[in-house]
Amino acid sequence: MYKVDLNCDLGESFGAYKIGSDESVIPYITSANVACGFHAGDPLVMRKTVALCKENGVSVGAHPGFPDLMGFGRRNMNASPNEVYSYIVYQVGALRAFLFASGMTLDHVKPHGALYNMAAKDSALADAICTAVADSTPSGEKTPRLLCLAGSEMCRSAERAGLLYTSEVFADRAYEDDGTLVARSKPGAVITDENLALDRCVRMIKDGVVTSVNGKDISIRADSICVHGDNAHALEFVKKIRAAFNENGIEMISPAKAGD
Amino acid sequence: MYKVDLNCDLGESFGAYKIGSDESVIPYITSANVACGFHAGDPLVMRKTVALCKENGVSVGAHPGFPDLMGFGRRNMNASPNEVYSYIVYQVGALRAFLFASGMTLDHVKPHGALYNMAAKDSALADAICTAVADSTPSGEKTPRLLCLAGSEMCRSAERAGLLYTSEVFADRAYEDDGTLVARSKPGAVITDENLALDRCVRMIKDGVVTSVNGKDISIRADSICVHGDNAHALEFVKKIRAAFNENGIEMISPAKAGD
Amino acid sequence: MYKVDLNCDLGESFGAYKIGSDESVIPYITSANVACGFHAGDPLVMRKTVALCKENGVSVGAHPGFPDLMGFGRRNMNASPNEVYSYIVYQVGALRAFLFASGMTLDHVKPHGALYNMAAKDSALADAICTAVADSTPSGEKTPRLLCLAGSEMCRSAERAGLLYTSEVFADRAYEDDGTLVARSKPGAVITDENLALDRCVRMIKDGVVTSVNGKDISIRADSICVHGDNAHALEFVKKIRAAFNENGIEMISPAKAGD
Amino acid sequence: MYKVDLNCDLGESFGAYKIGSDESVIPYITSANVACGFHAGDPLVMRKTVALCKENGVSVGAHPGFPDLMGFGRRNMNASPNEVYSYIVYQVGALRAFLFASGMTLDHVKPHGALYNMAAKDSALADAICTAVADSTPSGEKTPRLLCLAGSEMCRSAERAGLLYTSEVFADRAYEDDGTLVARSKPGAVITDENLALDRCVRMIKDGVVTSVNGKDISIRADSICVHGDNAHALEFVKKIRAAFNENGIEMISPAKAGD
Repeated sequence: MYKVDLNCDLGESFGAYKIGSDESVIPYITSANVACGFHAGDPLVMRKTVALCKENGVSVGAHPGFPDLMGFGRRNMNASPNEVYSYIVYQVGALRAFLFASGMTLDHVKPHGALYNMAAKDSALADAICTAVADSTPSGEKTPRLLCLAGSEMCRSAERAGLLYTSEVFADRAYEDDGTLVARSKPGAVITDENLALDRCVRMIKDGVVTSVNGKDISIRADSICVHGDNAHALEFVKKIRAAFNENGIEMISPAKAGD
Repeated sequence: MYKVDLNCDLGESFGAYKIGSDESVIPYITSANVACGFHAGDPLVMRKTVALCKENGVSVGAHPGFPDLMGFGRRNMNASPNEVYSYIVYQVGALRAFLFASGMTLDHVKPHGALYNMAAKDSALADAICTAVADSTPSGEKTPRLLCLAGSEMCRSAERAGLLYTSEVFADRAYEDDGTLVARSKPGAVITDENLALDRCVRMIKDGVVTSVNGKDISIRADSICVHGDNAHALEFVKKIRAAFNENGIEMISPAKAGD
Repeated sequence: MYKVDLNCDLGESFGAYKIGSDESVIPYITSANVACGFHAGDPLVMRKTVALCKENGVSVGAHPGFPDLMGFGRRNMNASPNEVYSYIVYQVGALRAFLFASGMTLDHVKPHGALYNMAAKDSALADAICTAVADSTPSGEKTPRLLCLAGSEMCRSAERAGLLYTSEVFADRAYEDDGTLVARSKPGAVITDENLALDRCVRMIKDGVVTSVNGKDISIRADSICVHGDNAHALEFVKKIRAAFNENGIEMISPAKAGD
Repeated sequence: MYKVDLNCDLGESFGAYKIGSDESVIPYITSANVACGFHAGDPLVMRKTVALCKENGVSVGAHPGFPDLMGFGRRNMNASPNEVYSYIVYQVGALRAFLFASGMTLDHVKPHGALYNMAAKDSALADAICTAVADSTPSGEKTPRLLCLAGSEMCRSAERAGLLYTSEVFADRAYEDDGTLVARSKPGAVITDENLALDRCVRMIKDGVVTSVNGKDISIRADSICVHGDNAHALEFVKKIRAAFNENGIEMISPAKAGD
């Protein structure tokens, strides 16, 4: 039986500001990446989001980012590994407290936005993140998995730190021959044909292979697919993904629930 | 044998900004209240402060405040109990993560500044704080004590929530007949005679009695004394306190170390 | 000919967060209160909002608030008059720079949320706001009007400071016998019958009279009506207001455009 | 007669946090770069700093930075030219309002920290800054000068935008053959011999020449020297600079006071 995780960013609202349709998309996903107050999210939102995840039986991960609310954590910042380490400990700890209060556990950590992209290429940042996650896990708790871009430095850092990781792929993005994402600025970076995107997902999951932007078949590990549900169209696509996976005998389950 | 805790606010620096002489005062205290990033402190400072406490064998508490860095958490804010609950869970959780990473435990929680003062009088806020502390304690960990103004609503809330608390007194402040602090705006609010202040401390600890601003002896429970060490004079006074307590057979130890 | 201003809060988005339907409501209003980055708004949003106002020929005012993005400036904060003075100078100056860059002038200032409500009752805060507005007006520019709750301390402060002010009324709120708003917590605080609300507005504008919650006719000065357009229903109501005013021979124009 | 400006960063305190010895250094400088609330400074501090500059007859400039208080604006951020434009308009406008309130004018703008360094090399950012300064100057006011790293892209942008600029040199830094600063990570980047530093300054001012790290004499325009006074040693060095310049017939005056 094939398995895959469907992860989605949740809890990105802040104060009076609402982003995302968390209630609409949550029935269709298996893992939630919950913002932790630096690039998005606030303590009230975190509490509500954790409750929503509990109700829906969804695995909860922390989604820590750069301290850049004005830029939604999407701008590269020249933060040192030491700074990043401390930012991760802080944000992961804050989210974990809401999980303690709900009798839940932290199942994974996925860095957000610019931090995700920078750590995918920079092993010092990736190591800082993995070490922070390992160090700050309370004794008696299972260390959370890292949710990482397939083939990235984050995967190698997780291995070095002795952490499990979930290899993430994108349904709507093209890959270079070396397995990295084609930059959005390049032609062909985004797969707009939804049926093609679904076929690619199924093949990545079942065969561990995807056709690169240059037409070459390359290896890829697809443990989790990142989905969005923040508008009607995005939500329709999530439903299509689920239907396609059901047809192809692919079970949708988070690694934590699967006991991986 | 008499016992008392000496607590001090530490870790209040932020980024390039330094406040306090943490390294100078820490040898003279038994408990540190560590800022958690809302009114003061940042993740790097929290990490350093926890390490400093570990080196000095000082009990660590969280010192959560209002989200008001510009006002250093000293301005009353009309936050709801629900908001305060979430702010406490968040900040306490963030600090606890640094303690997990150092193999330490969170021994107490002391609300900061305006939140401390408001919760001393407002039972709904006090309950929100105590419930947040109780709820967010991981299973297998001892629930932290509340560090509360002697005779305040916080003490009663802690009792209602089944939490231990440490009753805090001030060496340099006068008390009303009902045990509340004389407002700073009133004459006689501050005890400027250091020897008198020391004598009052010793009597509060040994006899549980203090003379009010009106000359009446009133009951007071003195488990902990709040000290400051942020300038040469403050540091001198801390040393005098220690000397006076040693002469009077009062052991200085945190409740956590004393096993209370 | 009767005249009235229709004012609306605009430019409350922040970074990736969108609040309000500025483009939809702006054709129906005469004055915009533009958030200045403390409780809402950011520099990019301010720039865009000023451009939108210019395109639509709408008078621009500053809408400064407390430094409380997490609470959207709606929570009372115990800020001193000196702090409030400086917050107003700062925010008004920041917005004015975008107006300079667009060849426009700042026509009014309306404090936001908790600051508006506190200053309506507290003459020291009201004076701080008015003095800040007067002091920071560049020589050669007309001092902006204050947009104030009808009958409030802000009106009296504006008079003391020698500033013009616009007296603001609310279509959907009931008034006490002394002209203050009935607190939202009390029965009858909100007028839900839209036709009644429109009739009350017309009477306030033409006759300067409104019936209080106790059935008494009281004097009120209605220079401006606060409207909202952030959802379909609110937008419909704005259109109804315009239709009712047109029928009743009430011209909708900002004080600045009217040359008042 | 030779002339030079002595500029210093002031007003970097924030809330309860104090940085710098503004009162000590201000008698020895001719221009102050005042932080504007993004990387440092707050409205109260800005007001006080402007008053201090007025008392001391010092020219005031804005010192805008990235929105990164936690990093003191010293970390590169991947902000777009459009974002930087808006950040500059906002911060410059906020400071100008305090100057209006004091009857003063804004004499210059110097980007802070990472923004200064990035704009020195990136013409798109430099253009965004210069355009923002030009656009947001009120009609009837003189456009402020840009204070720029000697030989940088900022100088060329200022020229393109038709703005005057002040070419800044550093007493204690070595220069490459192309006139750029030797990176701090390289050997010889910092001139530690104070007499050598003073001689180099005098030569830069009088002859427009400095010896590069490779021993080559290169052209450099020294309109202003950046000084620090935040500790006793820094303050001593400022006094030595003044003495050396007095001996060498170099007048210390800001470009604004000199009427340049």
